[in-house]
Amino acid sequence: MILPVDLQDVEQAHQRIRPHIHRTPVVTCRQLDLQAGTRLFLKCENLQKAGAFKSRGACNAVFAASDATAERGFVTHSSGNHAAALSRAAARRGVAAQIVMPSNSSAVKVAAVQGYGGVITFCEPNLVAREAAADKILETTGGSLIHPYDAELIVAGQGTAALELLEQVPDLDAIVVPVGGGGLLAGTLVAAKALNPAIQIIAVEPRGADDAYRSWKSGTWVPSIEPQTIADGLLTSLGAINFKIIQELVDLIWRVEEATILRALQLILERAKLVVEPSAAVPLAGLLEEPERSDGEFSRAHKRVGVLLSGGNVDLQRLPLGADTPSA
Amino acid sequence: MILPVDLQDVEQAHQRIRPHIHRTPVVTCRQLDLQAGTRLFLKCENLQKAGAFKSRGACNAVFAASDATAERGFVTHSSGNHAAALSRAAARRGVAAQIVMPSNSSAVKVAAVQGYGGVITFCEPNLVAREAAADKILETTGGSLIHPYDAELIVAGQGTAALELLEQVPDLDAIVVPVGGGGLLAGTLVAAKALNPAIQIIAVEPRGADDAYRSWKSGTWVPSIEPQTIADGLLTSLGAINFKIIQELVDLIWRVEEATILRALQLILERAKLVVEPSAAVPLAGLLEEPERSDGEFSRAHKRVGVLLSGGNVDLQRLPLGADTPSA
Repeated sequence: MILPVDLQDVEQAHQRIRPHIHRTPVVTCRQLDLQAGTRLFLKCENLQKAGAFKSRGACNAVFAASDATAERGFVTHSSGNHAAALSRAAARRGVAAQIVMPSNSSAVKVAAVQGYGGVITFCEPNLVAREAAADKILETTGGSLIHPYDAELIVAGQGTAALELLEQVPDLDAIVVPVGGGGLLAGTLVAAKALNPAIQIIAVEPRGADDAYRSWKSGTWVPSIEPQTIADGLLTSLGAINFKIIQELVDLIWRVEEATILRALQLILERAKLVVEPSAAVPLAGLLEEPERSDGEFSRAHKRVGVLLSGGNVDLQRLPLGADTPSA
Repeated sequence: MILPVDLQDVEQAHQRIRPHIHRTPVVTCRQLDLQAGTRLFLKCENLQKAGAFKSRGACNAVFAASDATAERGFVTHSSGNHAAALSRAAARRGVAAQIVMPSNSSAVKVAAVQGYGGVITFCEPNLVAREAAADKILETTGGSLIHPYDAELIVAGQGTAALELLEQVPDLDAIVVPVGGGGLLAGTLVAAKALNPAIQIIAVEPRGADDAYRSWKSGTWVPSIEPQTIADGLLTSLGAINFKIIQELVDLIWRVEEATILRALQLILERAKLVVEPSAAVPLAGLLEEPERSDGEFSRAHKRVGVLLSGGNVDLQRLPLGADTPSA
């Protein structure tokens, strides 16, 4: 089966975006290994430009465009990391980024986009208003819509995180990835499975936003309806391109409880000393939950497991973190 | 003048401790550069084993000892990062660590030491009781006292952080270092000045615990009396060995306000996405304060400045962090 994105696309993306992104470090932490019961290699996309892996896809889309296209600017509707990443990428190319954001977006997110030079158009907080606002800007400016996750260039860009991780730690047995819209997961699958067909790629999503699991299990795309999770980066439905790639290549999708996500988040903060957003803690939550997980397909023993820490944009003061167990 | 520690001691320490410590990453963050008005290279000792640079000195002291000495165990009085680091180092050598801690130590710190296998003796929270308790253990066991900062092997070990930093970023113009007991500062001075005599080494300490500044300015050792600062790793008086090295080699000592330490801490958490303890934020505070600092000896323009993020052992829930400005 021919997939919409392949390893060559990811390698091209890496060449293209290298001057514009961080080659993020891979960190190990014995205290986390003990909790997870396996050896972990944390790919620190929380330390990425604009605080998340989204800079990879956004830079790839922006720098792949022709000069004529780029000059008309880029447009997206997003209130999250993609909006900041696209604003930054467009600014580096010296062109405009127009961001449609719901009128109830937090001041922090508005400030992040504005800080990178994005021009915000506010709209009513619903999908119809959002798309109408974006369409109007596209008509007026002739700019290009850059979808947050369901586009070939975005997937290829996000895949560069796994490409780098496998350069940094070549002998991984598995990589654990959060899944929301599926861009990071699809990119990881395309890159990692081409480099090492034996590697296991495991997606993890919150039980309260388990459309990827249900789509994968049923073989039919299932939308995310009224998702409930603290992992605010994983609320969206799976993209169509991404679902195709995921159906073909993913090994397992695990679902985790909210309490485990919070526990994982706290462990990463207190033990690994890294600031991550709740979505980035979801893969570790998958490893923490049911340590005796007997699905017969993932054996923890002697494993070397890559973990994509997807981003670090979080308001620590607002998290319901528990008691103190720092240090160590 | 012959100093008590030289570059060769630091290089030997590095060979000795390499299997036992992390080669910590160096991270850059444009948002921090903008705030500091100069290009920063953050040496992430918050990601070090046991969460602080103290693992370097402790491993050096423990692994430099003869088998006969090591078998009698190691002893220290400390309630902080050195206690955890020494416990871990001794455990790796398979010998005992006895830690004298004041009876009012926080449960978190007690748990950290115990987690690494250290055996705790509680004492009244004063210097006389602490030294008496340590002396008693030393008499009984014949073990070796490992001072937290004022010992040649400790200084040489701490100097390996700067050694690594200069391997990772050879062309630094300056390194900014927090100063408490002075072990990290003395080790940095010995290593960095030998490798590059033109490099500027700037120490920063809280204004409420400015014994190093006063000692340096007056040329006479001044003890730290009733220090007041949130930077709990910088409360101690300067060690005698360290003062000698500092007097000879340091370029500048800056003092910073508490409010600036908190601002620096928040920037590192929210912008650099790294969990650090207040002491580790003190160097950045020095760069933030008085950006027009006209001491004529440090010019910010075109500088490449290394920053030693000394540790990450902090209870985030207890910090008086301000409003939310994450992301970006």
